[in-house]
Amino acid sequence: MNPEIEIQHKSDAWDMSDLHPGLRWQFSVNAGITHSNGLSCGYLQLDPGAELPLHFHKEQEIYMITRGHAELLTGATTSRAVATGDTIYIPENSWHGIKNISQSVVEFIWIFPTDTWQEVRYIFANDRLNQAQDQSDQ
Amino acid sequence: MNPEIEIQHKSDAWDMSDLHPGLRWQFSVNAGITHSNGLSCGYLQLDPGAELPLHFHKEQEIYMITRGHAELLTGATTSRAVATGDTIYIPENSWHGIKNISQSVVEFIWIFPTDTWQEVRYIFANDRLNQAQDQSDQ
Repeated sequence: MNPEIEIQHKSDAWDMSDLHPGLRWQFSVNAGITHSNGLSCGYLQLDPGAELPLHFHKEQEIYMITRGHAELLTGATTSRAVATGDTIYIPENSWHGIKNISQSVVEFIWIFPTDTWQEVRYIFANDRLNQAQDQSDQ
Repeated sequence: MNPEIEIQHKSDAWDMSDLHPGLRWQFSVNAGITHSNGLSCGYLQLDPGAELPLHFHKEQEIYMITRGHAELLTGATTSRAVATGDTIYIPENSWHGIKNISQSVVEFIWIFPTDTWQEVRYIFANDRLNQAQDQSDQ
């Protein structure tokens, strides 16, 4: 039997990590929650001052900003302003991150060409985060 | 040289078609406009009363509702209510469509596992639309 159309509601139940204070996320399409066949996506929110630090992964990714305005980190000392309605295409193995330098919540959608977010291996510029991630994976 | 991060702003310049009054769209990631490597997406808006009629295509697709509430068509006589924040996973070859039965604009993001929207072949339940599409392709 073919999979059926599935509707996932955005909820008030967000996932969080001590490694990234003020950052929360939820899955929208992700194998294990919904069907997925090489497409996964979800919502991420950043409180004022919070950031998803500079990192890369071998997969390409798309961000679509749905709320607020932020600083897109593109290198150790470079950034670009982004705001609601902006779509960001991030090629494979490209440094990127995002920081909320505003006074309001920032929200965006991430899209990966994978079945799951979990299979994407994040490599952070700050090696302390990589080490903490390795430990939390165990 | 690797492609670079690209930012596409949502604009007031929407594409339209006489075949679908009250429906407009714009591309966010689509080969020819941005880099794309098997991921494409964009925004679609429906005025009150407008619809993207029932259709299918061989590709899976994701809709993410960013504004308003609508009726997701799932068959000739079946539908489901969807609203802002809802993510809809549409498997390959599944009938679907969307109708704005509200008094406000509906907006959603579409996501395809393709380089472009143009390569997706829409098969409409209403054959008149297929014939018109064939003519406009020529």
